[in-house]
Amino acid sequence: MAALPDSAREIVESDALANLVTLNPDGSPQLSCVWVGMDGDEIVCAHLPRNRKVQNIERDPRVALSIEAEGMSHGALKYYLVVYGTARITDGGAADLLQDLAHTYLGPDVVFPGMPDPPPGYITRITVDRVGGVGPWAP
Amino acid sequence: MAALPDSAREIVESDALANLVTLNPDGSPQLSCVWVGMDGDEIVCAHLPRNRKVQNIERDPRVALSIEAEGMSHGALKYYLVVYGTARITDGGAADLLQDLAHTYLGPDVVFPGMPDPPPGYITRITVDRVGGVGPWAP
Repeated sequence: MAALPDSAREIVESDALANLVTLNPDGSPQLSCVWVGMDGDEIVCAHLPRNRKVQNIERDPRVALSIEAEGMSHGALKYYLVVYGTARITDGGAADLLQDLAHTYLGPDVVFPGMPDPPPGYITRITVDRVGGVGPWAP
Repeated sequence: MAALPDSAREIVESDALANLVTLNPDGSPQLSCVWVGMDGDEIVCAHLPRNRKVQNIERDPRVALSIEAEGMSHGALKYYLVVYGTARITDGGAADLLQDLAHTYLGPDVVFPGMPDPPPGYITRITVDRVGGVGPWAP
């Protein structure tokens, strides 16, 4: 496990979307935007259904994510964080995590997903292997 | 080849960065942000050095890219475009394409990369296979 620099942790905990890559059964990339946060040293995101991302990670734990950030390098390249990691899926707790993340992504008073009886869902937990991109966190 | 809806083409031609995924020799994902534009029906980006992205695409043409956009779905999910495509590399023309894209990404009067004698470089040309994400372009 690699440490996530504080500057990168701030980006993960911000309201910027993460572009999350997983690998399909045929090895092709699958890409979607997700809400992310930190749980200890792991990057986490939540899924109510057992969607393609969850199925892909259960089969191949190699993931990458990028998050755009404020700031520019040399006045030309916008800052962005890339994290390469190893992911695992845990069962349950998705609605509670989505509610937490909704406070960051949508607003402090937002109720989300707002279902009366949400399914337990799944949480993706990503261990950081390597950090890249453009910004103070990049090697 | 799938057609890129006009609403998606607008996003590709905007000043929003593309999160481009290629596949490393071991099948793991490689992810970085790039400037993109359209050349006919192909999505294009430029590289001065023969970097990891170029080498990856020469070996495995399967790519994906995401671009964040304005607008929300159901007041909760920010719009973003995903394109799954097949890429090829052509030699030369990188500095000219970077100069064109710099007008969109940095400003109408910007000179970029501004080298006196830039290397010919490489252009990535992506044929659109499938469009996804969240927004009017999503199936």
